[in-house]
Amino acid sequence: MSIVIEKFGGTSVGSIERINKAAERVARTKSDGYDVVVVLSAMAGDTNRLIDLATQIHPNPDPRELDMAMSTGEQISIALLSMALNRDGCKAKSYTGSQIPIVTDKVHGKARVQRINSDRILKDLDDGYVVVIAGFQGITDCGEITTLGRGGSDTTAVALAAALEATECRIYTDVDGVMTADPRIVPGAQILERITAEEMLELSSSGAKVLQIRAVEFAYKYGVDLRVLSSFHDVAGTLISSKESNMEQPKITGIAYNVNEAKITVRGVPDRPGVASKVFGPIAEAHINVDMIIQNVGMDNNTDLTFTVDRSEYQKSLVLVEKIMPEIGAQELVSNGNIAKISLVGVGMRSHTGIATTMFSTLAAEGINIQMISTSEIKISVIVDEKYVELGVRALHTAFGLDDANVPKRETAPQQALQS
Amino acid sequence: MSIVIEKFGGTSVGSIERINKAAERVARTKSDGYDVVVVLSAMAGDTNRLIDLATQIHPNPDPRELDMAMSTGEQISIALLSMALNRDGCKAKSYTGSQIPIVTDKVHGKARVQRINSDRILKDLDDGYVVVIAGFQGITDCGEITTLGRGGSDTTAVALAAALEATECRIYTDVDGVMTADPRIVPGAQILERITAEEMLELSSSGAKVLQIRAVEFAYKYGVDLRVLSSFHDVAGTLISSKESNMEQPKITGIAYNVNEAKITVRGVPDRPGVASKVFGPIAEAHINVDMIIQNVGMDNNTDLTFTVDRSEYQKSLVLVEKIMPEIGAQELVSNGNIAKISLVGVGMRSHTGIATTMFSTLAAEGINIQMISTSEIKISVIVDEKYVELGVRALHTAFGLDDANVPKRETAPQQALQS
Repeated sequence: MSIVIEKFGGTSVGSIERINKAAERVARTKSDGYDVVVVLSAMAGDTNRLIDLATQIHPNPDPRELDMAMSTGEQISIALLSMALNRDGCKAKSYTGSQIPIVTDKVHGKARVQRINSDRILKDLDDGYVVVIAGFQGITDCGEITTLGRGGSDTTAVALAAALEATECRIYTDVDGVMTADPRIVPGAQILERITAEEMLELSSSGAKVLQIRAVEFAYKYGVDLRVLSSFHDVAGTLISSKESNMEQPKITGIAYNVNEAKITVRGVPDRPGVASKVFGPIAEAHINVDMIIQNVGMDNNTDLTFTVDRSEYQKSLVLVEKIMPEIGAQELVSNGNIAKISLVGVGMRSHTGIATTMFSTLAAEGINIQMISTSEIKISVIVDEKYVELGVRALHTAFGLDDANVPKRETAPQQALQS
Repeated sequence: MSIVIEKFGGTSVGSIERINKAAERVARTKSDGYDVVVVLSAMAGDTNRLIDLATQIHPNPDPRELDMAMSTGEQISIALLSMALNRDGCKAKSYTGSQIPIVTDKVHGKARVQRINSDRILKDLDDGYVVVIAGFQGITDCGEITTLGRGGSDTTAVALAAALEATECRIYTDVDGVMTADPRIVPGAQILERITAEEMLELSSSGAKVLQIRAVEFAYKYGVDLRVLSSFHDVAGTLISSKESNMEQPKITGIAYNVNEAKITVRGVPDRPGVASKVFGPIAEAHINVDMIIQNVGMDNNTDLTFTVDRSEYQKSLVLVEKIMPEIGAQELVSNGNIAKISLVGVGMRSHTGIATTMFSTLAAEGINIQMISTSEIKISVIVDEKYVELGVRALHTAFGLDDANVPKRETAPQQALQS
């Protein structure tokens, strides 16, 4: 028995026509010889309609009751898809998160999946049914209905793939796959046939939003093979796998950017223990997420501390840092809201030297000044002036040979025309 | 602990404004010192929207999946009402039929309630919560979601009242109560302050649709006191009780009529055993509901057999009876689709003679010919030409003293202006 999970997002089930199309896809996978478990989001628009009703009653409605209302969206889409499958002669049964059950913790609105009972699913698969499950929702041990938060259907799909030891978890979206760079700024961007989960995580956190980060983390943790593909075009999409590939790894998988950051530098900080925690303590207490943190080797017992935050939290962060300046004896506060981060991601980076040099010289050749540098095992990020972001991403895309057929093909699945 | 069940129908929760109004009502009952359990239907329009989506997929969608979709309607209304109650400082929690659980048989689309677990409800009431429960839905022993069929929320409310031994089950509707006759044809019709469940059943089955018949049957069976009242006007409504009243019963409680019937007469049927079953066998097999059946004493070993059916099944019934005419040796088939039934209902009839005589002479005085007569312990029904129905009902309403304050007042609750 080889199980495939197929997850369709809100736009992929946004109308009866699209539900019929999704049913066709599912039936095809079934006739390919797989046992199929489908996970659905609510029809596009349904969730907003429910939020609108709730906020007419109260701007911050009771979270338990909001989950009660919100979980109806998926319940409708799973019923409709199952009707369509049954109509087309493909036996199907739908289940809510409560029915499976998909057990979560008690945090209404952003619950986490704790365990899944697979008995009912396996029995139905054995009996030849396609099992259609409501994404985004679960139930606590006390029988309270919960939701996983927006985008949580991806998490449901991956959690089911792990519980059922599925061969593959297919996430149907409105893009054709994961790309080497944003096609809106790099016309030559290519769809990646394969990417590791680690690379995907670095790309996601660097601003390339195709999948919910939590779903990728989950897939990585449980060794689930994820495939991102289009519900509108017949393309093979991108396989996100942590399993070893026999093929040689390319150096660079993709280039991400983020123009929603701002940087803050505290200059002339006395170079002694405890200073960093005094700076970041109040920031953390205010629930502000810090992205990059850089502190270089000091001089004259003084050092400079630079960090970046999301631009929406820039002003709030400045106020907090200004307050602690006297306490830590810092000399000057310098900040810049017009920066951008460009990141190179690729597991091949680990074993290949010279990647950083190529990156820096490519940017220099375009006259782009690098303001900050930060590296991890599979990522190099630089902060540059916001106005250079498109030029920088395009130049790097070319420099690392991502523009063309030089991207090693690591699968034999047909690659079709790119849709931006 | 004195529990009151309050059930609101679809129009009573049809908008945010009305949900807020229902919340006010519930909060008032709570502050009157009762423990309150609320049962809701789906917001008016929601059910039709779901049926519309489903029938776009298939004219006869899979009944299991239709229940899955349909049960979301109440889930939304219970969440919204609970949000409103919580906002107003009245602690509330909503539950689906599955969560309670309300256990039903397996007949999707028209399931019957088998048992209710009251543990969770009683615990929440003890903790000071208003418990808001989705009507119309339940779950089978195998964990399948079911619905009770349209109007099933009344049944849910009564079943809960029985399970919780509630003091009263209040059904909020868009009418002010049960009336002595249809106010559209009898301007002097009065709201009844009290009626027995038996009378209500006879009125319901005679075409006076205020409550679902099954809910009244249930209330009768379990001795639940039902009160029908308006969600728009502040009136005491009508109490439907099987409990003994100390007051003297009036002879007649109300007058019902039904213009949706047709009659079929088989003339010259040989008067021998087995003939009736040969006539009604095929009718029953075709799931056609027969209302009245009359067979008078025969002459010359021949008899006439007359019965009435719903007008929508008139033609189908005629075809079936024509087919068996030769087999039973009947002489002639006579039928009439333009008839109406007028029924007098009242438990007082049991002990008062002369009711029938007054009825027949009143109709005769108006020149109305009686085509058929049928009686039960608390009802007399006559079939007349359809065109006389309004005249007949009005004349009887006056003849039995229902037009005015002669209707004995059996409760002290204030009676307000009648809204037709």
